[in-house]
Amino acid sequence: MSNPTIPDIVIGRLPIYLRALNRMIQEDKDYTSSHELGERLGISSAQIRKDLSHFGEFGKQGTGYNVTYLHDQIRHILQVDREWPMAVVGVGQLGRAVANYRGFQARGFRVVCLFDVDPAIIGQEIAGMTVQPMSKLKDEIQRLGIQVAMISTPLETAQLVADQLVEGGVRAILNYAPITLAVPPDVHVQYIDPVAHLQRMTYYLKP
Amino acid sequence: MSNPTIPDIVIGRLPIYLRALNRMIQEDKDYTSSHELGERLGISSAQIRKDLSHFGEFGKQGTGYNVTYLHDQIRHILQVDREWPMAVVGVGQLGRAVANYRGFQARGFRVVCLFDVDPAIIGQEIAGMTVQPMSKLKDEIQRLGIQVAMISTPLETAQLVADQLVEGGVRAILNYAPITLAVPPDVHVQYIDPVAHLQRMTYYLKP
Repeated sequence: MSNPTIPDIVIGRLPIYLRALNRMIQEDKDYTSSHELGERLGISSAQIRKDLSHFGEFGKQGTGYNVTYLHDQIRHILQVDREWPMAVVGVGQLGRAVANYRGFQARGFRVVCLFDVDPAIIGQEIAGMTVQPMSKLKDEIQRLGIQVAMISTPLETAQLVADQLVEGGVRAILNYAPITLAVPPDVHVQYIDPVAHLQRMTYYLKP
Repeated sequence: MSNPTIPDIVIGRLPIYLRALNRMIQEDKDYTSSHELGERLGISSAQIRKDLSHFGEFGKQGTGYNVTYLHDQIRHILQVDREWPMAVVGVGQLGRAVANYRGFQARGFRVVCLFDVDPAIIGQEIAGMTVQPMSKLKDEIQRLGIQVAMISTPLETAQLVADQLVEGGVRAILNYAPITLAVPPDVHVQYIDPVAHLQRMTYYLKP
């Protein structure tokens, strides 16, 4: 961990700041302020200043933040000023969408290998990659030095896949299967479960 | 809002509890404890008890929680003991995966209509639905009384789509486009940006 005193919730907001700064670069904006960033993101300017202050002094009183400079600094902090090779396990419809998604590369990631258990899917060419059998998973991710993987299998197999990924050296897992994974403390897991997001909102709706 | 004194972060954990309880039902488990739930979810048992205490007294000293009862109570609290019709806007590869995803229905949702701008996609049959043009969006969601929608368009059009959804009566948006949406205060938005999740993890990795 780069700095154990920085709360993970702060780290979790940095990608959101990065995304907004990237958008500002596309808009040819040279300078911004914590106020403007906050307006765009629905986060208070005080929170943004406090979050960034964990990492240094990025803005100047009066002129605010240089957009490109702050963007590059956050990329560096998050270590996405390089490209992380990724494995995708589970090549159903979601896995295919992930394999073909063009939004990874500009933001620090590239899918480099695909795995599945289904003999009908193994051997298929998807996004320029050949789907490999699960039996090759551990060797292949070791060989390629892969630390980042996505699980897009059914929930029944997700834990088994996670175990194999961890054995092969993966330290960051994005899990699309709707199940909480058990992993060693040095392995990071993030979850994407669209239904959980939806359920969080229906609480507030009038039936 | 059902109870303005309950923090949204607590509401956000209820779907995770619900998912774990659902899994326990599948395992034919009758009773559980905050300790066991916490172990499965990597959340402290004290946190779970505190979260649930906002809504009532669900467990008994000694026997713990009746799994089915707690499951049904949380479904009721989140208002997912009914089925919410959903619109999906943007029927590219991700929108297709969402339209075909079979995990919604058991958890309170059903995709009932699909919209796109692309003449080559409009009119296609996907998961038993005909993709409709954006010009029909507002009328159609009003007619169907839809309050929940997903945006899976490119980021450039996501805000425009959100504006139309809100005009049509949508109050909960799950946004897959990597951009923060501006919406009125009574509209809820949740974001799914896989790259933001990945970037949050690479901070901790050794390059």
